[in-house]
Amino acid sequence: MGHGGGGMLSAELVRDVFAPAFGGEHLAQLGDSAVLDLGGARIAFSTDTYVVRPLFFPGGSIGDLAVNGTVNDLAMSGAVPAYLSCGFVLEEGVDLDTVARIAEALGAAARRAGVEVVTGDTKVVESGHGDGVYVNTSGVGLVAPGVDIRPQRARPGDVVIVSGPVGVHGIAVMSVREGLEFGVEISSDCAPLGDLVRVLLAAVPDVHVLRDPTRGGLAAALNEIAAAAGVGVTVEERAVPVPAEVANACAILGLDPWYVANEGKLVAFVPPEHADAALAALRAHPLGAQAAVIGACTDQHPGMVVARTGLGGTRVVDLPLGEQLPRIC
Amino acid sequence: MGHGGGGMLSAELVRDVFAPAFGGEHLAQLGDSAVLDLGGARIAFSTDTYVVRPLFFPGGSIGDLAVNGTVNDLAMSGAVPAYLSCGFVLEEGVDLDTVARIAEALGAAARRAGVEVVTGDTKVVESGHGDGVYVNTSGVGLVAPGVDIRPQRARPGDVVIVSGPVGVHGIAVMSVREGLEFGVEISSDCAPLGDLVRVLLAAVPDVHVLRDPTRGGLAAALNEIAAAAGVGVTVEERAVPVPAEVANACAILGLDPWYVANEGKLVAFVPPEHADAALAALRAHPLGAQAAVIGACTDQHPGMVVARTGLGGTRVVDLPLGEQLPRIC
Repeated sequence: MGHGGGGMLSAELVRDVFAPAFGGEHLAQLGDSAVLDLGGARIAFSTDTYVVRPLFFPGGSIGDLAVNGTVNDLAMSGAVPAYLSCGFVLEEGVDLDTVARIAEALGAAARRAGVEVVTGDTKVVESGHGDGVYVNTSGVGLVAPGVDIRPQRARPGDVVIVSGPVGVHGIAVMSVREGLEFGVEISSDCAPLGDLVRVLLAAVPDVHVLRDPTRGGLAAALNEIAAAAGVGVTVEERAVPVPAEVANACAILGLDPWYVANEGKLVAFVPPEHADAALAALRAHPLGAQAAVIGACTDQHPGMVVARTGLGGTRVVDLPLGEQLPRIC
Repeated sequence: MGHGGGGMLSAELVRDVFAPAFGGEHLAQLGDSAVLDLGGARIAFSTDTYVVRPLFFPGGSIGDLAVNGTVNDLAMSGAVPAYLSCGFVLEEGVDLDTVARIAEALGAAARRAGVEVVTGDTKVVESGHGDGVYVNTSGVGLVAPGVDIRPQRARPGDVVIVSGPVGVHGIAVMSVREGLEFGVEISSDCAPLGDLVRVLLAAVPDVHVLRDPTRGGLAAALNEIAAAAGVGVTVEERAVPVPAEVANACAILGLDPWYVANEGKLVAFVPPEHADAALAALRAHPLGAQAAVIGACTDQHPGMVVARTGLGGTRVVDLPLGEQLPRIC
């Protein structure tokens, strides 16, 4: 299971198996989406398969995730998401009403995100060879001239901003899957980030890196950026917004909220002189109201993420080995 | 199972569930790929999930299919295929050597087809919730100005050409899956059609319709075109190339070769005045050496496909209800 968890085993699979087999310069970009030239247009292109369990959870469904996950991968390249494809794998015997509810959620999420589902495919596999419904979406979007957002562009001095509290989506799915009750219902904050990115880029065109901390959470996202750019990242532990109910649930479950998946949050690396403008732009948007500066890039400890604890100490924030929460997206 | 078979149940699922939920003008085009404007470029966009069983078969593998299937969907819009995404769903416990062999086949097929795999995703599901490996690929390509190829453009008088013998791929997969022996090994003719389409369009820019007869075979492809354009299609039964070994295998299995899936063949509808040029262009290419005129479009029996038998009679060629051969692509 660890090979799909977005952690170290996932990275090894890509590095050792897929990258050598596929070759090519674009795959090596390692961004959430590839930015390509096609007929003179700069397009972003991304894909994700959604295997979340259960299919419906507080605050959303696999249909919402399938739109927002791919839309957000495009937005993390600075693209304006435009079109989605949609491929269903249905397990024989799945209730067609369930499929219809997912399709409706997917359609509604697409309209909210301002994208159009333009092409699709459906396959059916025998009972026992699927898990109800898997959904793949791929997306294309348009990248404005001059925008160059990718992990490799992180620079020492960059200010690290997160757009809001982390860990909510993962805990929402986990709680309903495991039948856990934490006193309050935790609802997924799954959301499309295209508009938030548009507003951010209007204020600060020279954003260096954007990343949505999905599988592997904030910890994996920061580690991937540190490794790709060869910079260190220092995080002020107390600055990272973690809602009390997420912190409580994580304490009960023995999880670290920094490793819990999000879908509807972003991490931005911006030059220090633009940090205030970036923070103000994010906070002026409903999806970034609780944005916070959580740290900075440094030329110390390249490739490594270090947290400064409340007591003044430091600890290394590792890339997760496998995954804490399987099948969360 | 029938809902994924490319026949009537598939069409109902799209018409009754997906199309109303997703809305939008492009989905209604019902082509193998959508043709879109993005930043001034005309791009084709398509997706397919591959659940073929077994993963390796004579003449190919799921890796070859995952490239050629999506590349061919793009080519059927007259696009020059350019970039692919690739999403793997791995079943926990699958042999990593198997994954590596598939990835290598996929990479080699991409190089043969002249496309680049630029973005990817891997998910792992628990043992018993998958079937080894499922692969989704989506693709984008560029459509030249003036090219307008889609099912709705079929016109009475159009000549119907098939690029070679039908039924080979489906029977190749079926024979190894069921452990059948037909005296000779039947090897899949799975191939990328981008170059064949390029050559065809260079000779005859005004091709009306292209379709690769995959799930549901030749019969489904012709029915879909007849329904989309509101024209009748008449097929000369004896003109349809069916290799003797495919005919024999079908006779043993009780299948009709016109309903067996292909991957590496195309059907073209061309204006009658360009039929000779189209046939010559196809035959001059290795992948179209056995191209044949198999029929024509008519204003008689709109929406219906009629075969003229060798004895001078006629029979209706129905859209298949479900599928003859599940999980063939």
